[in-house]
Amino acid sequence: MNEILQHLSLVLTQRKTADPKQSYVASLYAKGVDAIAKKIGEEATEVVIAAKNGEPSQLIYEVADLWFHTLVLLSHQGLTAEAVLNELARREGIGGLPEKAQRNKK
Amino acid sequence: MNEILQHLSLVLTQRKTADPKQSYVASLYAKGVDAIAKKIGEEATEVVIAAKNGEPSQLIYEVADLWFHTLVLLSHQGLTAEAVLNELARREGIGGLPEKAQRNKK
Amino acid sequence: MNEILQHLSLVLTQRKTADPKQSYVASLYAKGVDAIAKKIGEEATEVVIAAKNGEPSQLIYEVADLWFHTLVLLSHQGLTAEAVLNELARREGIGGLPEKAQRNKK
Amino acid sequence: MNEILQHLSLVLTQRKTADPKQSYVASLYAKGVDAIAKKIGEEATEVVIAAKNGEPSQLIYEVADLWFHTLVLLSHQGLTAEAVLNELARREGIGGLPEKAQRNKK
Repeated sequence: MNEILQHLSLVLTQRKTADPKQSYVASLYAKGVDAIAKKIGEEATEVVIAAKNGEPSQLIYEVADLWFHTLVLLSHQGLTAEAVLNELARREGIGGLPEKAQRNKK
Repeated sequence: MNEILQHLSLVLTQRKTADPKQSYVASLYAKGVDAIAKKIGEEATEVVIAAKNGEPSQLIYEVADLWFHTLVLLSHQGLTAEAVLNELARREGIGGLPEKAQRNKK
Repeated sequence: MNEILQHLSLVLTQRKTADPKQSYVASLYAKGVDAIAKKIGEEATEVVIAAKNGEPSQLIYEVADLWFHTLVLLSHQGLTAEAVLNELARREGIGGLPEKAQRNKK
Repeated sequence: MNEILQHLSLVLTQRKTADPKQSYVASLYAKGVDAIAKKIGEEATEVVIAAKNGEPSQLIYEVADLWFHTLVLLSHQGLTAEAVLNELARREGIGGLPEKAQRNKK
């Protein structure tokens, strides 16, 4: 399951040359950063509402939507999930060798 | 780098028994779902602003903040990153064997 | 121009008995608080984007959308613009006699 | 109560020359559009949460906060509440003579 974000980043990069009429993501790219940023606000609000509803399956679904659209935004700006995962690892003091760092903790 | 989200989910679960005066995450848990949900809205807005600013490092930083707080929210509701990654994989038709699925595509 | 918010609150209350197929507002009422709350998040994000774009006409348009949907939300919860205007006046120390209070300041 | 938005627009314009250390609004102006836009996202999220909580007084309070910060944003961009009220009136087909238009409806 671990590779899904990187996999999605790869797929999203490939969609940059897809037909906006055929691909939802390509249609977002074609509309530009405002349309993609708007989706972030929408999906974040749906996460908030799901959290208040207290329904786990709804929350998972909406967080997946939010993460997906942040990946679209990153991709649109020439970035990938890896940059974000690296930043999160950096904050955890894991640096570039997370598996080793975790192993050492045990 | 792949394990960082799962690692964070683990750390965030452990913080549930931490002192709210000592831990930022524990203080969010103590404040409850409204405080955590509010952070989602804040961080999403910062992602939108970073996207409009077009500065890659700012965008990476703010997306990391947003993902982190969604992990806090998930953890508060008894969920982990894995549930969201599974949902994203399910949508990609990768199911429970993402690496194998990806290998088969080649 | 001053009465427009109260006028809208009145109109929005009347729409509560309208046909959801004929009226946008009635369709939002029919969908319930989650759908209306989602619109608040959407329109707020569009205000943020308009602010970043620095285009006055876009900002006015999006703030109008945001205020309109907060009026829909208030109406759905049995409230009107007047309650919010009263709260804003209260904070300004104007109380129930804003014009007199303003005159006294001069 | 009708004049409060215009009154606030006037007050907010005056705060442009206030000391950021003395005035909350002046401190927002000094931080710039990103800080003000961020407040829009925050307050909108609090409106969403209040709506889900179904507490009228909380909803009124948070909508007042949201409207106030949209006025700050408008003021920062050289605009006032009147432009938004005019836009809302225009959509209602009330044009520049709302009171007369309303009277004619009766």
